Order: sequence, then C-alpha cells, then structure tokens
Amino acid sequence: MERLFDEELTSLKKLLLEMAGLVEEAIGDAMASLKDRDEAKARLVFDHEKAINLYDIEVDALAMRLLALRQPVAVDLRFIASSMRICSDLERMGDQAVNIAERSLGIIRQPLLKPLIDIPEMARLAQSMVKDVLDAFVRGDAALAENVCERDDAVDLLNDQVFRELLTYTLADPETIPRAMDLILVARSLERIADHATNIGEHVIYMREGRFIKHGRKTKNDGGAPPLAN
Amino acid sequence: MERLFDEELTSLKKLLLEMAGLVEEAIGDAMASLKDRDEAKARLVFDHEKAINLYDIEVDALAMRLLALRQPVAVDLRFIASSMRICSDLERMGDQAVNIAERSLGIIRQPLLKPLIDIPEMARLAQSMVKDVLDAFVRGDAALAENVCERDDAVDLLNDQVFRELLTYTLADPETIPRAMDLILVARSLERIADHATNIGEHVIYMREGRFIKHGRKTKNDGGAPPLAN
Repeated sequence: MERLFDEELTSLKKLLLEMAGLVEEAIGDAMASLKDRDEAKARLVFDHEKAINLYDIEVDALAMRLLALRQPVAVDLRFIASSMRICSDLERMGDQAVNIAERSLGIIRQPLLKPLIDIPEMARLAQSMVKDVLDAFVRGDAALAENVCERDDAVDLLNDQVFRELLTYTLADPETIPRAMDLILVARSLERIADHATNIGEHVIYMREGRFIKHGRKTKNDGGAPPLAN
Repeated sequence: MERLFDEELTSLKKLLLEMAGLVEEAIGDAMASLKDRDEAKARLVFDHEKAINLYDIEVDALAMRLLALRQPVAVDLRFIASSMRICSDLERMGDQAVNIAERSLGIIRQPLLKPLIDIPEMARLAQSMVKDVLDAFVRGDAALAENVCERDDAVDLLNDQVFRELLTYTLADPETIPRAMDLILVARSLERIADHATNIGEHVIYMREGRFIKHGRKTKNDGGAPPLAN
C-alpha cells in the first residue's frame, strides 16, 4: 500500500513533467514561428495546446483521486496540492503560447516593423525561467525556485521597454499601429509566461518548506503595459 | 468530530464569501473611479487588494489544514479542492481591479477621449457574471453556473468591439494613442474578470457534479485583443 502510493506519486510527477515538456515545446515553437516567419510552426502550437489541455484534466483527476483514496498528510499532501497548482500554471502558459502563435500568424504576413531584439531576449529569459523552475520542481530545490522568482523583474522591465519603444513608432507613423500592437501583445504574453514560472517557483517553495511567499515579495504584475498617462 | 468538520467547512465557505465580497467591491470601486473620475475610489481598490491577498492566504491555509486533518472524501473533498481554485480566481480578479484602478488614475487626469459606452456595458455584464456565479456557488446551483459560463462570449465580443473602435481613433489622430491604449487595457481587464467568473462557474459545476467542462466548451480567450493583421 505504501509502495503503491509512492508509485502513484511518481506517476503524478511524471505526468506533470510530460505536460511541462509540451509547454516548453509550445513556447519554443511559438517563438520560432515568429523569428523564422514560419506558419507551420505556429500551427504546431495549436496541437500542443490540445495535448496540454488533456494533461491538465489527467493531472487534476489523478491528484483528486490520490487525495480521496490515500488521504495524504504533510509532505505528500503539499506535493499533491502543489502539483494541482503547477498544473494550472502550466496550462495557462500553454494558452499564452497560443496567443503568441496567433499574433505570429498575423505578424509574418506583413513587412517587419523593426528587427526583433528585445522580444527574443524576453523569450530567452522567460524560457530559462521555465526550464529552471521545472528543474527546481524535479530536484525539490527551493533556492533555485527563489532565484527564478527574482528573475521576474528583468522580464517586466524588458516588457516596459518594448512597450515604450513600439509606442514611439506608432506616434511617428500611425500606419504601424496594428503591427506594433501585435508585438506589444507578444511581449505581454512572454511577460505572463514569466509570471507563471514565478508562480510555480512559489509552489515549489511551499511544497518544500511549507511557507507561502506569494504576496510577500512584491506586487503582482499581470503583464499589463506600464501606465501611460501619469 | 463530524460536527466540528461541518463547522470548519462552513468557515471555509464564509471566508471565501467574505473574500468574494471584497472582490466585488474592488471591481465596483475601480469602475466607479473611471466613470466618476474619482481618484479616491481608485485608491480604495489598492486597499481592497491587500485585504484580498490576506484572504487568499487564509483560505489556502484552512483548506490545506482540512485536507490534512480531516482527510475528506467525495463531496467534501470536491468542495475543498474547488474552494482553493475559486480562491485563486478571486485573487486574480482582485489583481484585475487594481489594473483598472491604475489605468483610471491615468485616464482621469486627461480629457475624455470619447463618452464611455461599451466599457460600462462590459463592466455591467462582467459584474453580473461575478454576482451570479457566487450565488451559484452559495446555492450549489450548477445550472446557474453553466448559464454564467455561456455569457462569457458576449463580453469577448464587446472587448473586440471596444478594441476596433478605439483603433479607429488612433488611426485618425495618433495623439489619442496613449488614451486609447489605457481604455483598451481597461476593457481587457474586464474581459479577464469575466474569464475568471467563467472559471469559477466551471469549479462550481465540478463541485456539484464531479465533471470537468473546462476544456470542452470552447477555446480559452485570455483577454488578448482580436488578431489585427490577418
């Protein structure tokens, strides 16, 4: 019984990591479609998302079954509750990858507004946060999780910078507005992916140490653009 | 013991409803600040959000304690798991109210771009979804919860309409871009509040009927603007 439960916990972790692998692929393909102007890559993201949604349901169902049948306590309970939360953040990352792919399909049909510099840099930072926070989850490494949370500010700053820079294009030439808006929304999606990585970091810390840091560290930025008018 | 557990479940529900009351107030104050051009109302929202975050931690802690100590099954387990999820959506609604209040502070310092028509209508729809889905939670009314989920499309449509209309202003006069952008972001926050109400509706249905509808109904719209360029 004890051993069976251990196997079930291992299955839960395995499901979550398979789901996370798909999410990383979805983000990678969405960004590749934008950088390489590749429609096929964007369409791959929509398939990934369908698979991610199936994992979301499967992880939730297994976690609920374990809560009901095994009545876990302490570390195991925190692991299962954290898995459900991590699953929800992964699923939302998948949604953001779809948003990027949708923008990309629009962007690549038009002339490039400007060479992409900050947005690929944002993507690089966000993707490394996702990768590291999943490593932190696998290894139960709270210090690495905390490090990931701290990196969120850099992505927020880049998001603000992208926004302000693109705004200057639109002010100089209103014809650039639709293209600028698409890029602003891509940046926002990357910023939200970094937020979700931060959330996962917080769940890992909770899972390991039983302490909540989510409202302690800083005010949340949900990826909106910086205030414009004050 | 049985009776104590019932009391604990009642406390959990009560906490969640107090939290929900604050969230409704935060959304109401954020919109009132925008409509009445009232800075003080916007600042109230920041206080509400701090209180909402404290509830978020308290609900989560109580739910985890009940999972650990009472080892609930069936309906009680689904109620506790759903409470944790509803709590997370309420907290994110609070964040969106803050986003609206922040925009409002910018918007009310400048001349009005145009009379507000669609945005208050979006707010009205979103607020009624929030109200009804909380009623559905209190009464365990899955049919009402499903009805709330169906109303999300109307909010999405209004969001698209606001976006396109404001875009025409910016194309005619680039000086309106910052003000239009602020209003676009207010609309997006309302759209996301409606999404969270829909999520809560899905949790209520799960709680009552044990079935997941979250990925069955339609693709998720996270409040991004409609595609522009294709």
